[in-house]
Amino acid sequence: MVNNSYYSQELHGPYELHDIGNLELEEGGTIRNCNLAYATFGTLNAAKDNAILVPTWYSGTNKIIEQVLIGKGRGLDPDKYFIIVVNQIGNGLSSSPHNTPAPGGMANFPRVRIGDDVRAQHKLLTEKFGLTSLALVVGGSMGAQQTYEWAVRYPDMVKRAAPIAGTARNTVHDFLFTETLVDAITSDPGFNNGFYQSPSDVREGLLRHAKMWAVMGWSTQFFQSGKYKALGFSSLDDFIVNFMYAYFSVMDPNDLLCMAWKWQRGDVSRHTGGDLREALGRIKARTVVMPMSSDMFFPPADCQAEWRLIRDAEFRPIETIDGHLALFGADPNALVQIDKHLTELLATKV
Amino acid sequence: MVNNSYYSQELHGPYELHDIGNLELEEGGTIRNCNLAYATFGTLNAAKDNAILVPTWYSGTNKIIEQVLIGKGRGLDPDKYFIIVVNQIGNGLSSSPHNTPAPGGMANFPRVRIGDDVRAQHKLLTEKFGLTSLALVVGGSMGAQQTYEWAVRYPDMVKRAAPIAGTARNTVHDFLFTETLVDAITSDPGFNNGFYQSPSDVREGLLRHAKMWAVMGWSTQFFQSGKYKALGFSSLDDFIVNFMYAYFSVMDPNDLLCMAWKWQRGDVSRHTGGDLREALGRIKARTVVMPMSSDMFFPPADCQAEWRLIRDAEFRPIETIDGHLALFGADPNALVQIDKHLTELLATKV
Repeated sequence: MVNNSYYSQELHGPYELHDIGNLELEEGGTIRNCNLAYATFGTLNAAKDNAILVPTWYSGTNKIIEQVLIGKGRGLDPDKYFIIVVNQIGNGLSSSPHNTPAPGGMANFPRVRIGDDVRAQHKLLTEKFGLTSLALVVGGSMGAQQTYEWAVRYPDMVKRAAPIAGTARNTVHDFLFTETLVDAITSDPGFNNGFYQSPSDVREGLLRHAKMWAVMGWSTQFFQSGKYKALGFSSLDDFIVNFMYAYFSVMDPNDLLCMAWKWQRGDVSRHTGGDLREALGRIKARTVVMPMSSDMFFPPADCQAEWRLIRDAEFRPIETIDGHLALFGADPNALVQIDKHLTELLATKV
Repeated sequence: MVNNSYYSQELHGPYELHDIGNLELEEGGTIRNCNLAYATFGTLNAAKDNAILVPTWYSGTNKIIEQVLIGKGRGLDPDKYFIIVVNQIGNGLSSSPHNTPAPGGMANFPRVRIGDDVRAQHKLLTEKFGLTSLALVVGGSMGAQQTYEWAVRYPDMVKRAAPIAGTARNTVHDFLFTETLVDAITSDPGFNNGFYQSPSDVREGLLRHAKMWAVMGWSTQFFQSGKYKALGFSSLDDFIVNFMYAYFSVMDPNDLLCMAWKWQRGDVSRHTGGDLREALGRIKARTVVMPMSSDMFFPPADCQAEWRLIRDAEFRPIETIDGHLALFGADPNALVQIDKHLTELLATKV
């Protein structure tokens, strides 16, 4: 374990922890007493048919989901729905390399797959809340990977699905990009094969990782139009240091690597021997696919290719110059579009 | 100086060296006995009006220009034109950190700007060949930066200009991407502040640099469609190792950094106090702007924004899924398009 005050109730709460017991993983390891951190908004109705699940993206926690997507009058309205945001394994709040006691923590933390997260979440939702139906599963990026996995794995339980800025099967290009992020961290001599004394030993690796996120995460237009200045940063350097570095440098390197490994290998076609068409054909949820128009990770064309394989699905690109990181919510107009699509989806009878 | 057999007549020749004397640089340093390596194709006519200049891109030499762009019946036809390919300073054949004797070599090699290259090339062309007119300047990427610089700096000399996959003023986003490439190399402990004993001391940094080129250099479609397999590689790993690593890992780290610094700061508006419109307004050359349709470095929109500022210019995007690295010539159809546009441009009376 490594002390890290970033992963705290003060910064990310309030959230609850639920111990789902030992989680046996697809890759063969086991997380003992796997804890899922989650936050809920709104009230579950008597029919238990107003529950919405929101899994988290890479580096994200329940807090940013709350800030960006949830609110009165929004698509995810706690006055109408019971919204459960579940932190993915490895994100620092749920069971993660940094908060797991030796010998199972740090670099010994086992390999986790998207499917493991979804099985763990299923256990939480059924055991803790007695849910048998989800009005909607919605998530961005790795949250989209989990959304697709939910819709394919539990087709009768998921009534609606909204994968935003993500794919059901990761692309070769995105796998490669993520590998460069991994390399940025692991190449830091202070990383010490994952057994650093403190995250600050890996500072330079974390900063390189953050800068590479800046390159692929936004878009050329975002920078060319000076959007980073409009967000209150005086220069490119100021933006890199006081936004990108500030955001990532406080995180735990092994936690990020746990998520990165999982992200690289997200693939619903593992259920069907590699047949993506067959896997997506299992989806019964009413689905709206929402890529970000300027996303360099998951360009609309890549999302569109999957959308074509989903029955009765809608393809609704979100127009924005914020690229993949429109997920951060800095483009209010992108949020308006997402809210509109979610509201319409939730109004659809299924 | 560092021995490096990659930069040799065997691999890149035949080329000639021309000593233009001391080159005083915009940033204040001096390259003593600056040597430009160049290769020529075809014959200069009596009127001396059939000369074409082709400057090189990042990591490129005269050899790849010859292989990709020059040939009988091509746009750049040595039967019709006298084609001079000049290796940019820092590329390993012309004066560069690795081939400059101590104390001026290695990390002591001075900062070079695109404008320095263009002044040096001007000296070569006027002194050595007595040229007062260029039928065309054409180049890709950093070659496009030099093409723009030529057209703005020597508007009466440059009759036609064809910047391919590059910009007149580098974008903020591309500056940032290039910085991550620089970081990949300089963060290698073996780099030793630029005073390594052998390029192989920086192997890991060079490999990270190569992988990052793979991410931004091609496109998602290039990978998603399996194009790398069509090029003869059995897997993504095989492609990364035997193409990307093989290509970059033999190069000199300081040479790459010299070019990267220059690339980041390419900007014709240095002539006009930062006014890009005024700078591009100086161009008298008949200009055809050719972005690559899937380029993640210089997306068509960024090139189009500059094209609008050039008098009577044509905007001719090259349709390809090979991204920026369509410059490598692996998409024959991209070459057909470039040839067509160059042929038409050269046929235009000016």
